[in-house]
Amino acid sequence: MIGLRRVSRVLLLRRLSAYRLLSTKVKEVESSTNSNHAISMRQLLYTTDETSPGSIFFLPHGTRVLNKLIQFMKNQQIKYGFQEVVTPLIFKTKLWKKSGHWDNYKEDMFKVVGNDASKDEVAHSHEEHEYGLKPMNCPGHCMIFAKFNRTYNELPVRYSDFSSLHRNEASGALSGLTRVRRFHQDDGHIFCDMTHIDQEIENTINLIKDTYAVFGISNIEYYLSTRPEEKFIGDIETWDAAESKLKQVLDSSAGKGNWEVREGDGAFYGPKIDVLLTDAFEKKHQVATIQLDFQLPKRFDLKYVSADGSIDKQPILIHRAVFGSLERFFAILLDHFQGKWPFWINPRQAIVIPVNETHIGKAEELQRKLCGDIINHEQAVSPLTGFNFHVDIDKRPATIGARTKEAIQKGYSYIILLGDKDIANGTYAVRTRDDRTITSMTSDEIYQMFIDLERAYK
Amino acid sequence: MIGLRRVSRVLLLRRLSAYRLLSTKVKEVESSTNSNHAISMRQLLYTTDETSPGSIFFLPHGTRVLNKLIQFMKNQQIKYGFQEVVTPLIFKTKLWKKSGHWDNYKEDMFKVVGNDASKDEVAHSHEEHEYGLKPMNCPGHCMIFAKFNRTYNELPVRYSDFSSLHRNEASGALSGLTRVRRFHQDDGHIFCDMTHIDQEIENTINLIKDTYAVFGISNIEYYLSTRPEEKFIGDIETWDAAESKLKQVLDSSAGKGNWEVREGDGAFYGPKIDVLLTDAFEKKHQVATIQLDFQLPKRFDLKYVSADGSIDKQPILIHRAVFGSLERFFAILLDHFQGKWPFWINPRQAIVIPVNETHIGKAEELQRKLCGDIINHEQAVSPLTGFNFHVDIDKRPATIGARTKEAIQKGYSYIILLGDKDIANGTYAVRTRDDRTITSMTSDEIYQMFIDLERAYK
Repeated sequence: MIGLRRVSRVLLLRRLSAYRLLSTKVKEVESSTNSNHAISMRQLLYTTDETSPGSIFFLPHGTRVLNKLIQFMKNQQIKYGFQEVVTPLIFKTKLWKKSGHWDNYKEDMFKVVGNDASKDEVAHSHEEHEYGLKPMNCPGHCMIFAKFNRTYNELPVRYSDFSSLHRNEASGALSGLTRVRRFHQDDGHIFCDMTHIDQEIENTINLIKDTYAVFGISNIEYYLSTRPEEKFIGDIETWDAAESKLKQVLDSSAGKGNWEVREGDGAFYGPKIDVLLTDAFEKKHQVATIQLDFQLPKRFDLKYVSADGSIDKQPILIHRAVFGSLERFFAILLDHFQGKWPFWINPRQAIVIPVNETHIGKAEELQRKLCGDIINHEQAVSPLTGFNFHVDIDKRPATIGARTKEAIQKGYSYIILLGDKDIANGTYAVRTRDDRTITSMTSDEIYQMFIDLERAYK
Repeated sequence: MIGLRRVSRVLLLRRLSAYRLLSTKVKEVESSTNSNHAISMRQLLYTTDETSPGSIFFLPHGTRVLNKLIQFMKNQQIKYGFQEVVTPLIFKTKLWKKSGHWDNYKEDMFKVVGNDASKDEVAHSHEEHEYGLKPMNCPGHCMIFAKFNRTYNELPVRYSDFSSLHRNEASGALSGLTRVRRFHQDDGHIFCDMTHIDQEIENTINLIKDTYAVFGISNIEYYLSTRPEEKFIGDIETWDAAESKLKQVLDSSAGKGNWEVREGDGAFYGPKIDVLLTDAFEKKHQVATIQLDFQLPKRFDLKYVSADGSIDKQPILIHRAVFGSLERFFAILLDHFQGKWPFWINPRQAIVIPVNETHIGKAEELQRKLCGDIINHEQAVSPLTGFNFHVDIDKRPATIGARTKEAIQKGYSYIILLGDKDIANGTYAVRTRDDRTITSMTSDEIYQMFIDLERAYK
């Protein structure tokens, strides 16, 4: 009983909340230099502030999109055998010296110190209380690998991580979501041996293709960057073997003729595959990356026991990301969809518009039902797994036409009208953002359609 | 077809992965000073490193627990009308001066500066390129509130945030999960007016009770801290009204006689309710907090248009957290359950043990089925919403007894044996961690039981 009483209060809160969404006005309409920014302003997706240049404030609706991207990738990574970890954001300078970042990346990093250094009791030297704010997750993952004795039959070990990363980009270069100082990656590191490489790369390329296809992006280019002529580490045989494997995998997964070589363009620590996509406006974006690394496992002295009992085998490290920077991928999607998000990722999936105030009760009933089983669970606590659709209601006394127009502008996927005839028939008048055609549907039919759309990533 | 071919490869990866879980050995068994640490070492939940004192490395199985706690709270917050946001981690010093943290909290904060200050083109003054690493989310949420014109009918505005927070605790005070420098809160801020307070506090207390009940914790104490005698801001009438409301809500939600007053113990900016729970070992822990704040809205000049058209009404801010620090709540749960996690939150939910190698194929089939529909989806991409159970397999040629014993030690909720008789009957021999009784069940029955357990938080 307590559960029920409380639920009705919660419902009331949601009603107010739905109304609120529609009445919020942007205070400072900053000058719109690009369409991303304009769409974000209209849809209230994100904002920035001069107190933290290059760090995005994701507003509630932008956070919904970001969370969907993360949830999508987490679920794919489970299938591919990744294990998510959560690693620290700050590490002492000596760790960055060990990893090589201090020599090669220091200028792009932020330094962190306690305001009260005396709190760090072990801080004998200056260096002991100086930290670097992490620009990459790889050192943290290497440290986890190194914490345990490893054997050949554990490989490949695959860690994923969605940590905040910070890179000190020049403030003049900062721009919207694409050039930021703080960002998130769908980061993954695979520790494996040479025999695993082709399968792991193939899996990654398949995941890249499948992921982009979900967003309707099939124009993908692959570039293989090979051993630099002069500065490189490791022996040439290992490089040749790795490059030859990468070429084979590119032929079979990306397809012959669908990739190019960038001769001598690899990092000094290993060859890499860069992935570029072309958005709806023919603009190319560097997104995914797959990098082999023979260097970091050496710096962190990573070892495993091989099948023949040798205890000092060094794993190969593969750095890979599919979205790359989530912030940049978000920007690409904004461009690509022009604010017309597909239903499954739309932060505004549907809106219910009662014709007049006599229809409000029924409209609220529908809203509640369509919000999904996270909301509608009968127990005091919502379940862990379930559907959660973003359905608002517009019960303002404006005309149907005006409210429908505003709903389309805001980008709702479905607009559901409700008048006397609908109530008499026990149905609802459903139209999409892009098509005026009205379909009569029952609430069960609409809810099932939402489930089907989400499951099909439509 | 591509999808299917790939799935079988993925299955292979999982098989290897399952075996690996069992063969991983801890390299450095650090001295165990408390039972939390011992359980974490046995269950491979988290670790620490001297390169980042006070920051936890959540290992894969610890991350599963952490993610479950976060998912649980996100789903409750949806019901209570919270909107999740993602806010920056670093803010310029001037922001912390504005918020009052610089005066009152500076010694506990980390300072952040770019290694290459010249990159900050607007950095004319020293202060312009100095940042504070955030110890709390409230300033970021106030900034989002302030970005838009607000009206009375939008209130209450409720933001939630699971950001990383850093506080520079003395290194000597650092200990496991309970005294850390980097942590996460199930943080929420409610912007409202005086008429909303009782409902919002009541909702929060209900959420606290319902949440703790899920973990079998019902021994909860509430303390109301009232206006300090000398140092306080705001007028006495507002304080009195707020305290009187809090007392009423405590009477109705916590129950008369179930709370105590700590006279004069409130913060200078408003009265607060502290919530303590008692764990299975009679140890008390400060967890949830509900704080009214008349100060921060003033410092950030927060305003909304009231019903009478007045444009300078100041909202009241409620800071609230239910778990409090997720790291500390994790530690409490470790103590409370002594590593015997309930099924729904167990990072090791079940293990399948084939009697001998002729049963491995059937055992793998079961493992795959029980992993849930995130894994078993027929399309190339896994669905967004679905069940994902953590089911391993132990196909080592050790005796059933030895493997069962190890599974119990590792804390698997269910141990599923599979031999000739079971295969002939089309059933599996299922036992729990704590009860030797074996029940014959079909794979459908086991899977349905897992779903029921998760939905009931058992």
